[in-house]
Amino acid sequence: MPHPLDQLNPEELQRAVGHLKNYHKGKQLHIKNIHLEEPPKSLLGPYLQAEKAGKPIAPPPRIAYGYYYIMDDKKAEEIWIDLDTNQITKVVMVALPQHLPMDQDEANHIETFMYDDPLVLGALKECGIEGEAIKTVASDGWMYGCDEITSVSRHMMFLMYSRDPKTNHPESNIYAFPLPFVPVYDILEKKFVRIDWCATSGDDDDANGINYTTRQKYKFALEGHQASEYYPDLVPNKRTDLKPYNVLQPEGPSFTVDESNLVQWQKWRFRVGFNPREGLVLHDVDYDGRRTFYRLSVSEMAVPYGDPRPPLHRKMAFDFGDVGGGKCANELSLGCDCLGTIKYFDGHLVEPNGNVLTRKGVICMHEQDDGILWKHTNYRTEAAAVVRRRILVLQTILTVGNYEYIFAWHLDQAANIQLEIRATGIVSTQAIDHGKRSRYGTVVGPGVLATSHQHIFSVRIDPAIDGNKNSVSVHDTVITPWDERNPKGTGFINTKRYIDESSAFDANIASNRYVKIVNENKINPITGNPVGFKLAAAPTALLMAPPGTVARSRAAFATHHFWVTKHKDNEFYAGGVWTNQSAKEVGGVQEAVNRRDNVRNEDIVLWHSFGLTHHPRIEDYPVMPVEVLKVGLHPNDFFTENPAIDVPPSTQQFNRSVEVFQTRSCHRM
Amino acid sequence: MPHPLDQLNPEELQRAVGHLKNYHKGKQLHIKNIHLEEPPKSLLGPYLQAEKAGKPIAPPPRIAYGYYYIMDDKKAEEIWIDLDTNQITKVVMVALPQHLPMDQDEANHIETFMYDDPLVLGALKECGIEGEAIKTVASDGWMYGCDEITSVSRHMMFLMYSRDPKTNHPESNIYAFPLPFVPVYDILEKKFVRIDWCATSGDDDDANGINYTTRQKYKFALEGHQASEYYPDLVPNKRTDLKPYNVLQPEGPSFTVDESNLVQWQKWRFRVGFNPREGLVLHDVDYDGRRTFYRLSVSEMAVPYGDPRPPLHRKMAFDFGDVGGGKCANELSLGCDCLGTIKYFDGHLVEPNGNVLTRKGVICMHEQDDGILWKHTNYRTEAAAVVRRRILVLQTILTVGNYEYIFAWHLDQAANIQLEIRATGIVSTQAIDHGKRSRYGTVVGPGVLATSHQHIFSVRIDPAIDGNKNSVSVHDTVITPWDERNPKGTGFINTKRYIDESSAFDANIASNRYVKIVNENKINPITGNPVGFKLAAAPTALLMAPPGTVARSRAAFATHHFWVTKHKDNEFYAGGVWTNQSAKEVGGVQEAVNRRDNVRNEDIVLWHSFGLTHHPRIEDYPVMPVEVLKVGLHPNDFFTENPAIDVPPSTQQFNRSVEVFQTRSCHRM
Repeated sequence: MPHPLDQLNPEELQRAVGHLKNYHKGKQLHIKNIHLEEPPKSLLGPYLQAEKAGKPIAPPPRIAYGYYYIMDDKKAEEIWIDLDTNQITKVVMVALPQHLPMDQDEANHIETFMYDDPLVLGALKECGIEGEAIKTVASDGWMYGCDEITSVSRHMMFLMYSRDPKTNHPESNIYAFPLPFVPVYDILEKKFVRIDWCATSGDDDDANGINYTTRQKYKFALEGHQASEYYPDLVPNKRTDLKPYNVLQPEGPSFTVDESNLVQWQKWRFRVGFNPREGLVLHDVDYDGRRTFYRLSVSEMAVPYGDPRPPLHRKMAFDFGDVGGGKCANELSLGCDCLGTIKYFDGHLVEPNGNVLTRKGVICMHEQDDGILWKHTNYRTEAAAVVRRRILVLQTILTVGNYEYIFAWHLDQAANIQLEIRATGIVSTQAIDHGKRSRYGTVVGPGVLATSHQHIFSVRIDPAIDGNKNSVSVHDTVITPWDERNPKGTGFINTKRYIDESSAFDANIASNRYVKIVNENKINPITGNPVGFKLAAAPTALLMAPPGTVARSRAAFATHHFWVTKHKDNEFYAGGVWTNQSAKEVGGVQEAVNRRDNVRNEDIVLWHSFGLTHHPRIEDYPVMPVEVLKVGLHPNDFFTENPAIDVPPSTQQFNRSVEVFQTRSCHRM
Repeated sequence: MPHPLDQLNPEELQRAVGHLKNYHKGKQLHIKNIHLEEPPKSLLGPYLQAEKAGKPIAPPPRIAYGYYYIMDDKKAEEIWIDLDTNQITKVVMVALPQHLPMDQDEANHIETFMYDDPLVLGALKECGIEGEAIKTVASDGWMYGCDEITSVSRHMMFLMYSRDPKTNHPESNIYAFPLPFVPVYDILEKKFVRIDWCATSGDDDDANGINYTTRQKYKFALEGHQASEYYPDLVPNKRTDLKPYNVLQPEGPSFTVDESNLVQWQKWRFRVGFNPREGLVLHDVDYDGRRTFYRLSVSEMAVPYGDPRPPLHRKMAFDFGDVGGGKCANELSLGCDCLGTIKYFDGHLVEPNGNVLTRKGVICMHEQDDGILWKHTNYRTEAAAVVRRRILVLQTILTVGNYEYIFAWHLDQAANIQLEIRATGIVSTQAIDHGKRSRYGTVVGPGVLATSHQHIFSVRIDPAIDGNKNSVSVHDTVITPWDERNPKGTGFINTKRYIDESSAFDANIASNRYVKIVNENKINPITGNPVGFKLAAAPTALLMAPPGTVARSRAAFATHHFWVTKHKDNEFYAGGVWTNQSAKEVGGVQEAVNRRDNVRNEDIVLWHSFGLTHHPRIEDYPVMPVEVLKVGLHPNDFFTENPAIDVPPSTQQFNRSVEVFQTRSCHRM
């Protein structure tokens, strides 16, 4: 019997595919995803509580949810299948202007014939690429984006590159050889509809107007480019002076995990979930028998690029909605992606043709030493008490075309949760004429422009601080009047206001603004404040696109740091349900806020938007050292003392460190 | 022969003390510090370059610099002693209103007789503490602070506490038993001059006016208080399910270090310095034979408290200037404060009586695995290239009374430098009447108020990006006009302006503002930008105290995020040279900026102020889980590609991780 929060297992997925194929018998389907429809909170909540009380009740029904194209009919649908009764319970058409996400199979499939297409061949020829030379060409299938509030066909655009023509090595860095045109493909009509040529004159375009007429120069499109490789086989002269560093856990890990991905570690108890859209999800997170969070996930990421010259102004990816966090998850390998004693979790996906695919190790979990958790030295006696911080790391790594994202949830022994995001991979590049510069990006190699862009993430926090009814309070530090009660003007206090109605608001550095999620029904007996968790937010720049732009309209979630909404089943996606080619955020946080629900002492969701505004460094090329972002959830008035006070002290007997004395320096300069 | 950047060694310190004592023969001295006066850049710079070129020149003179009180004369002086010629070269009086820092010996000494003092005994009696009960009393000697722009005597104030009266255990947490009065001691007059009583009515004081007349209640000052212990011997029921986690480096560390603390690791080469004021300093930092930073240090920290009710409005510590980062450095112990293969560095200090004291292991250095440094998976072939990030950690831990600060410089293989600050220890507490609350802090135990406060740090960055002449540029992301060159309004660019004249400015989240240090004389051949490093700043709340307050005047450095000044020898201290009881920042960054020097293509210093505004959580009590702050320095246009491209890939053969499969869950709820 699967747990209600278990992913659909391969047998269930196969059964769902069977029902779907049977329903559309004889039709060619392109299945995008089939996954568990998470049970409504009204059913799942009581089930989880009964389970923990040791008095299990009947589980909610297992529902498979899927969406797909009926290729012949050029239609898209969603389907719901009850796996307990084997009944299709609902089918809904996904009508224009909405589109289903793109997928990698689609891009790969189109690439198999695109270099035979006359339009593409013609463009390649204009770049001086013909015959054998075509064999080095590669392309990244991209979401077409949206720049008009009109209904358009289901398109995909291709950013064109070449492997190093000198080697044609399959792992050659194609982003060092960008080609200046973008074939546009109509998926449902199954044809290339046009070639868009790119402006390549850099700042000259800006000074003199965009000039697409100097196309003869493209005949030498790859001339003067240089390989810039990252793949280890292609990088000579590696460092030889790095010594091994091994993590040993002679008694094994401190966690336990069962068949339903129930993890217990250092008073934490939670379930590891996985789905094609969000990837890694944490469910039903308890600490020391108390509820903290119902569900934690990364909901969306928008990646708009800053070069406004058509057609590359279209580059704006919603990596979760347009492609899928789970769909893009790497299979992690032992000794490479994590260090120490590691538990891997698999993910079950459905391929477009209905095959069930188990991706091995899409999530890894391991413990890490994270330095000192707390210390105090009594200066009178020099007696020191020091406790190290052990963290439990749940990591998943996404490859979305050129980019990689490493998402890791960290749990610690002081009841802190942290989401760490590392951005790495290869910056998206485009062609620029040799010797020119562009204010829209950084020239990182001959003829290669890495464009400025943003990554705005939304993390979705569905709290359950000691129960379902929670509130959000906003805290600002303000000075108090300089009067007889504040004779030297030094007074400052922390103010608090509650969010009563669903709404959005922003960070404020100057006032040290922070946000708490609290349960007003339960008061901390010592502080007198409601029990809660504090959000340690990432106060970063928000979406640059100004009001009135389609870019802003489609990513409303990226325009404010904080959003408080009333919980609604299946309202998981900050940027809307169908982001691919969307002109507007539909079903996202902006609409949720617009309901003007009461969110005080209600079942609420807090969404936090933050990100990177990335003006690429040349040091980010050909592959980018991680850029790290962190947000945290810290208990605040939840306990009656430091919850890590009972962690055993750090001792040499336990830690077995080694002291080194002077080592001879070789005095190389 | 010591290196010019070596600390004064014990022999040198002893010699300096000898000269000093001889100079003031027969006088009782209270020596605050004696340490190396770092050679002027005009001498040291050429020396370091000649050394690296393998053509050493004569070293600059070894100068001992000290400051001390002549107790009988009630005077303070600074002294300079040339250790090569054994000559005193300069003596300068430190005149009022300036005072030398306080020190722990002073506080400890006063505590030996304060419980015999009639003033203190009288106050204790008013609190119901007499006879045997006095034996549990403890006090923290505090900097007196300053609240008037007038010259005052050299004072120290004492925050009064008690060990747990039930146990009188020496490691009992005294901050659970605050007493509501503050004895004030005149150091040079050697007497207690008054008792200041504290307001304890919480918000009632604010509503009704501060009421010091209900003093009869103090007779039961410790009644109802409860012990709240952190010391491991006093904490029962520790966790038993944490398994050992060992770091093994079978081939030893990847670094080398010589007798002069010259460290070489992964293309980095630098010297580890230590002095009583700043503690850990990094000198002459090169990467792959290129200069990056001349000197990196934490310069100052101001800790103002927000409770304006006298006398506790005085609580404002400058932990570096009032006490000393090196003076407060813990002796670190193997297996407790770091994990792995560790090199320890000692620090040499002079005690007030002139004894030379070697503090063992005030700095530790070790390598750490820090997750993934870069990764890319070619989605076409699923070939992954992944490199782990090894960091070199230089850590020092300060105990300043109740608080601990963990400062760690992290260097990585992508030429990144990061300063990580962890705040831990015990929040400063004060008495509050049972059952009352205060908007100035958090009640963390019966009768215990943990007051809101700030920690504003200043990190001092003396750059040498490919040479001494550097500039600072400020970068803001702005949208471009929505016109024919930006037809869909999506354009944004990174703007740059240089700082021409020494000045201060602030972070700006909305525009993604960042700061670079560049060398305009050397242009990156690919990007066309000057070589540089980017400061990844911590954009946090600044000093709350408003204009016009003495608190703001004494900590001008804490009122702006960024300060650019022209380098001046010995201008090391953001908050001024003599911060103890200062009414104004003298010799700090504000004065340096006021010189209105040219700072474009000059020998410059960049100072970054940032911090924590801490409204204590009850979870921070009785000891605080670390709160972490980070600032970074990242190469930006310094290289022509990712400098970590040559780091060998992460392999299981090298890393030796272990996979765990399902473990049985014990299903404890």
